[in-house]
Order: sequence, then structure tokens, then C-alpha cells
Amino acid sequence: MTITSFSQDLKINSRELVDTIHSTADMFGAKGVWGSESTQTGVCRLALSDLDKQVKDWFIVETKKLGCTIKIDECGNIFATYPGKYNDALPTGMGSHLDTQPTGGRYDGIYGVLSGLQVLRTLKENNITPNFPITLVDWCNEEGARFAMSLMASSVWAGIKTKEEIYALKDIYDNETTVLQELKRIGYLGETKCSYKENPLKCHFEIHIEQGPVLEEYEKKIGVLTGAQAYNWLNIKIEGMSQHTGTTPMEFRRDALLATAKIISGINEVAKKYKGLASVGKLSLLPDVVNVIPGEVDFVLDIRHQNDEGLSHIRKGCQEVIEEACLNKAGNGVKLPYSIIDPYPYPATHFDKSLINIIDDSAVAIVGEELKHKMYSGAGHDSCATNLVIPTAMIFVPSRDGISHNPKEHTEPEDLELGFRVLLESILRYDNARLSEL
Amino acid sequence: MTITSFSQDLKINSRELVDTIHSTADMFGAKGVWGSESTQTGVCRLALSDLDKQVKDWFIVETKKLGCTIKIDECGNIFATYPGKYNDALPTGMGSHLDTQPTGGRYDGIYGVLSGLQVLRTLKENNITPNFPITLVDWCNEEGARFAMSLMASSVWAGIKTKEEIYALKDIYDNETTVLQELKRIGYLGETKCSYKENPLKCHFEIHIEQGPVLEEYEKKIGVLTGAQAYNWLNIKIEGMSQHTGTTPMEFRRDALLATAKIISGINEVAKKYKGLASVGKLSLLPDVVNVIPGEVDFVLDIRHQNDEGLSHIRKGCQEVIEEACLNKAGNGVKLPYSIIDPYPYPATHFDKSLINIIDDSAVAIVGEELKHKMYSGAGHDSCATNLVIPTAMIFVPSRDGISHNPKEHTEPEDLELGFRVLLESILRYDNARLSEL
Repeated sequence: MTITSFSQDLKINSRELVDTIHSTADMFGAKGVWGSESTQTGVCRLALSDLDKQVKDWFIVETKKLGCTIKIDECGNIFATYPGKYNDALPTGMGSHLDTQPTGGRYDGIYGVLSGLQVLRTLKENNITPNFPITLVDWCNEEGARFAMSLMASSVWAGIKTKEEIYALKDIYDNETTVLQELKRIGYLGETKCSYKENPLKCHFEIHIEQGPVLEEYEKKIGVLTGAQAYNWLNIKIEGMSQHTGTTPMEFRRDALLATAKIISGINEVAKKYKGLASVGKLSLLPDVVNVIPGEVDFVLDIRHQNDEGLSHIRKGCQEVIEEACLNKAGNGVKLPYSIIDPYPYPATHFDKSLINIIDDSAVAIVGEELKHKMYSGAGHDSCATNLVIPTAMIFVPSRDGISHNPKEHTEPEDLELGFRVLLESILRYDNARLSEL
Repeated sequence: MTITSFSQDLKINSRELVDTIHSTADMFGAKGVWGSESTQTGVCRLALSDLDKQVKDWFIVETKKLGCTIKIDECGNIFATYPGKYNDALPTGMGSHLDTQPTGGRYDGIYGVLSGLQVLRTLKENNITPNFPITLVDWCNEEGARFAMSLMASSVWAGIKTKEEIYALKDIYDNETTVLQELKRIGYLGETKCSYKENPLKCHFEIHIEQGPVLEEYEKKIGVLTGAQAYNWLNIKIEGMSQHTGTTPMEFRRDALLATAKIISGINEVAKKYKGLASVGKLSLLPDVVNVIPGEVDFVLDIRHQNDEGLSHIRKGCQEVIEEACLNKAGNGVKLPYSIIDPYPYPATHFDKSLINIIDDSAVAIVGEELKHKMYSGAGHDSCATNLVIPTAMIFVPSRDGISHNPKEHTEPEDLELGFRVLLESILRYDNARLSEL
């Protein structure tokens, strides 16, 4: 089946997208050299930092140049709206995020926002007025790396978090600083309500790097996403007893780190059993001194599964592993107290079927049936939040060696360009399909 | 057998010692409330901090009041010498340390220095001039908690470390600050050579809390130490690959923390097998972010054994555990690189037989045969350094529940007083025995 392309007659400068990715990386947070080329670094641009402010300022300048109107909401999200013919209708939405991990690459999130910008630049350059307005969103603090809530501001927009909750979040590197303080400090505490009800979008398209090995392994160019894994971040505290390492016999110990080690090994088995994922990425000891048995260990257990039932099995298995480890059989048998809190559970995401079809058709139009692949996302994305309240779908492009959250994160320029063209095609195709609304 | 006491006719105010322990704790670093009484806190007095300077200043004032002469050496050790009749002979030495762990108690080290002070106060109050001068030493940075080398300045004095090595040590909380800078800043970079050759002592007595459960368990009051465990601190780095926790299948991972968890569990078994000790008290992850698989883990493995051969067995067993864990069988089978450095190996210590006998006789004179116990030390002490170059021995008093390096560290006042009286008796007994030198 041949599919007509809505973008095939346009003048398309997709190389400009790649150049913009690198020029903004260089201007706003390039860090972590991994090769000899100037583009071979990662980016460190933590949410609500000075660098995040600078890239936000730049984003507003660039979208205003194209004739967009700008709204900044009370959670730091930026909505840049390109006018259409029917401006009373809800805008078609697309977006992603410009913040990164501390050891982030050049593409995670950034590729999505800048591809959206390139869609708007293409419309402008071709003097196209879409039927409906198109809003490009920079969602604030997707990563949750500095303020520990991923999908932070898109979650408020979708109504599953309150602005008060996120305002109170503290900088994990500096316990004195809150989201509210930083929003004010960098000038991004906007007046627009952060709510899908009061500042609505018709839908949300997002393009992103895969951050995993699947497309590369199957030699595909475009991932058409059907959904995203369920996941949960369990904040766990194990309480032991700080004692001198030299004077406390092994059988008298309450070693919180030894129990934690058994948990980390055990949850690895649990995840494999249920064909899901589990690991610990963040961990701290008290007092963290060479010759003191750790009296307390705090860590975050990240568990994921393709469906909610699988996640629930893993959660249960983890509970058993924790319970067993805290019996402290390797020590004096005095049970170690523990606590578990899971503040950010995300259910499995199932994207909107009609949007999936739009993307699927667009992918076929641009790369052909052979090079597109239906798949689900391993990571959470802002689209997982928007999908709770509006039709949403996503596009993936390959990640070299599946590496992400690492300066070495890389996608070939040709693949970045193909992905952008699928996004452009999807937006135009959707804009056309919406004529039936009228 | 009844043993004559050399101190029985003295006016002894051992309660003053207990009062001094609490008043200095209150003035210089009380922290970590664990009960409702004002004395129920720990102490945080990190080496070369402002609080360490303050307690050193206080120590000099108090010893000068007794007629002591003061030498400060180039590594921050303070030697306070009480004059004897034969002041050309080497002084009888006693000492311990006034610095603490960040989560330290009121007794570790402090009890030894203040008991020495109480010995000198007792001589003064009773108008006794000993045969030989007596030097009380405050050894600088025994803990190695802030600048990561335990027995720091006593090791330089004993010639097994150089002053240049310790000057370059960096504050683990602030990588900009060195030992040399802090010695200068607090005014304790003295002019006396830090060397047992150029600033010698005849011997070294040290009294210390046990920091373990043995005396309490056996219902003994005085530990007569025959030696101390061999120990080693292995600095280990495991290199994995930072990848997104959500998108990297379990079988494709190189998780440095998972390997570390297997090591921590494994070394626990190794230590038990060889009847020694092993644990990890200090550990850090890179990048330490919730949704990133740890790409690097650095930790310090603390291993101990009563004798050098046992330590060597444990060291070998740990190597095997590390090798096995780094095969990364739970991940993609790509071997994880690791490195091990062990900068501070301490062989098993065997104290001087004649000094052990002096202490043993003194313990019998004060508490009787039934309440003293021959034992070895689990922890390293400054006496392990001095024992390398001069006759050395130690006295222990019980630690409640064996707890130390914890604000709850506690020894009953009566036990503190008994220990002090054994130290006083030992010093006088030794001073008398030395008359045969003349």
C-alpha cells in the first residue's frame, strides 16, 4: 500500500534541526567529552538551573520569531502556539523537554522539542497556515534528576499532581532550595494555570530517542509507540546499627548495607522471573565512614513492567526479598526496621489508537513499511502524563548501543532527520484529519 | 596473690575525670541527642576542625596549669611533659586522641587523653614528683574520618608514613582542603619534628573504651590487651555502564551496583569462614540518579583478623568474590573492570610483654584477678603505631552493648574511674620499675 505524503511537496531543511541540536548543546550545558569532535559531548542542564533558564529564554525568542504566542504556566511549562486558520479550536499539541540528567546526552528530550521547533520553522518557511493552531510545549523538569519527581510539570498539567506538591520539592544537591524558589529566581513562575482544563490541548505528539537497543537490533528506523511500561520508584530505608567495624563480631551486627546488598541481588532475580526490570540507581549510607557499620541505608528501587499486572508481581516479589533480607540472619537476628514509600507510581500507558494510526501511516509514507516498528517505551515520558487526559502518541528513533542518560548517547543525523520528517508528516496529517471536526 | 598498690595511699579524685569528659564534650562538639540527660549526646569533633583546635587549646591550658612543658610537632601532635626527678631520661609516654567520628560518642579516644590528664592532676594534687618525666600525648587525627588515614599523625611519628603524605590528604567533605592547610589555619603546624627518633618516648600506655561487647559479656571490668587485630582497608572501584533503567533489558546490563551488592554479600561469608571481620562502611555511586544504572561504584572494604595469616586468607577470599561478581553473569556477561588499592595495611599488633605485665599487675591491684580479662583489640589505635617503635600496651574498659562510633557510646562512670585507676597505678608502677635503668 502506498500512502500519500502530506509533506512531500514542502521545502524541508532537516539538517537545520541537527545543527540546532548541537548549537544549543554547545551554548547551554555541553559536558562530558567522549570523542574528539566538537559535537562529541553530553549535556548537563538540570531543571530550573541557570542553563535551563537560558535555553528557555532562547526557546521563546526562536518561537516568537516564527509568530508564535507564548504562555508560561505556573509550573514553568512553556506553550508556544503557531496560529492556524481556526484559532478558536484547541491547538494540536506536540512537545518534550529541554532539561537533562547530570550525565545526560544531547538528545533525550531536547530532540523532541527541537523537532517540534523544526516543524514550525518548516511551516513558516513554506508559508503554510495550518487549519488549526499548533502548540509546541517545553515541559518543565521531565527528568526529575535535580528535583526528584519525573514528569513533574506535565503531571501537574494532567491533574495527577498539585502545584503545591511540586513547589515544595527540594533540590537533592541543596536541601535549602525548592522548586518554587527556583521558578521565581529564573523568572518562570508564569501566570497561566497549569491545567489541561484551563490551558487545554487537543492532543499530544512526542518524538524521542529510544534510549534502548530494540530499533538498532531489529534494524528499524522509526518506532511507532503503542504505550509505555508501568513503573514505580520505591523509596526504601533500612535501619541498622552504627557500630565499629573492628570490634563488633559478625554475628552481633545489624548491618544495613549488608541487608541492602541482599535486596539488590534479590530484586534482580525477581525482575528476571517476571520479565520486567528492577534496579537501584540512587543510594546513600549513614554515616558513610570507612570503619563504621552503616546504621542506615536509603535507596530508590526502580521497577518496571510492560503491564500493570506484571509490575504488581514484581512489587510483591520485592516485598518478600526486603522482608527476608531484614530478618538479619547474617547478623544477630534482630530484625532491621525498614520503610517503603512509593510516591510516583505510573501505570502502564496505552496510547490513543487514532494517533497511533496517524503516526503509523506517516512512518510508512516517510520510511516505508519495512523500516518502522511497533513497540512500547521502556522509559516514562511527558506523553505518559498527557495520555491520561488527551489523545497522545509517540515516535522513537534509534539510540546507538541503546545508551542514554550518558554523555555518549548518540543517534545518527540521518535518523534524527527521518524522525523529524515523520513528526512533520504526522502533524500535517492530523491537522488535515481534524477538518472533520468542523 | 596480693599485689601492693603504688597508688593506694594517694588522694584520688576520679570523679573529676568523669566531669571533665562531660564538660569538654559540652564545650567542644556535643551532638546527637539520645536521651533526656544533658550528658546523653555524642560528640562530633572532626580532626583539624575549629572544634579540634578549641579542645587542643584547652588541653594545653590545662596541662600548663600542672607545670607541663608543651611541644607541638609538625603533624599536630601535642606532647605535654610533666617533670620528674631525672629529666634527662626519656619520658614515660601515655596518650590517645581528642578527635572523633562524625557520629562519635563521648569516650572514644577522649577517655584516654583525659585519663592521662587525670593522672597528671593526681600527681600534682599529691605533690608527687615521679622519678622520670611523664609525657601525655594528644595524637592528631586518629579517626581518619575527615582526612581518610586512621592513626594519621602517630603513624608519621612511628616512621611508617611521611609528613608529606599526610600533608597532601584531602578533606573527604571538601576536596579543596588539605591537612597542611588545616594545620596552618588552626595554628597546629608545630616546629618539633614528628619522629620517634627526634622526639622520643620511653614507652606508650593507652587506655580506651573497648568499643565491642566482650568485657560486658564476660562481666569483666578491665581488659589487659595483648595486641590488636591486623586490618586492611581496600579501596575498590567497579566500572559498569550508565544506562537508562527503563530501557535497558536486564540481560544487556553492566550494573556496577549489582556487582557490588554481590561482593558485599560474598565478603560477609568469607569473613565468617575465616573467623575474621569484613564489611563496607563507605560507598558512593556515579551518577547516583534514580533512573540511571550505576556506571561506577567506589567503596572501601574493611577486613580484619586476629593474626596476619588470617587476614591474608580473607584478602584472598575477597579477591575471588570480586572476580566472580565482576564476571557480570547477571548482566550481558561483559566483564566489569575493577581496581583495588590498599593504602593503609596494618599488621597484627603484639604489645610489649613487660608493659602487659605492668598493666596486668596494676589491674589485679585495683580490681582483683576476677575482674580483669586478657584480650586483643578489634580496632586500630595510636598504640598500634607506637608499638612499632617503642614498648607499648593498652587497657580497655567496657562499652555498653559494645556500641561505638555512635552517639550512644557509653561506659558507666564507675567503670571509667576504675580504668583510670589502673592507668595511674600502671604509670607509677612503671616509673618505679624504671629505677633499675639508673
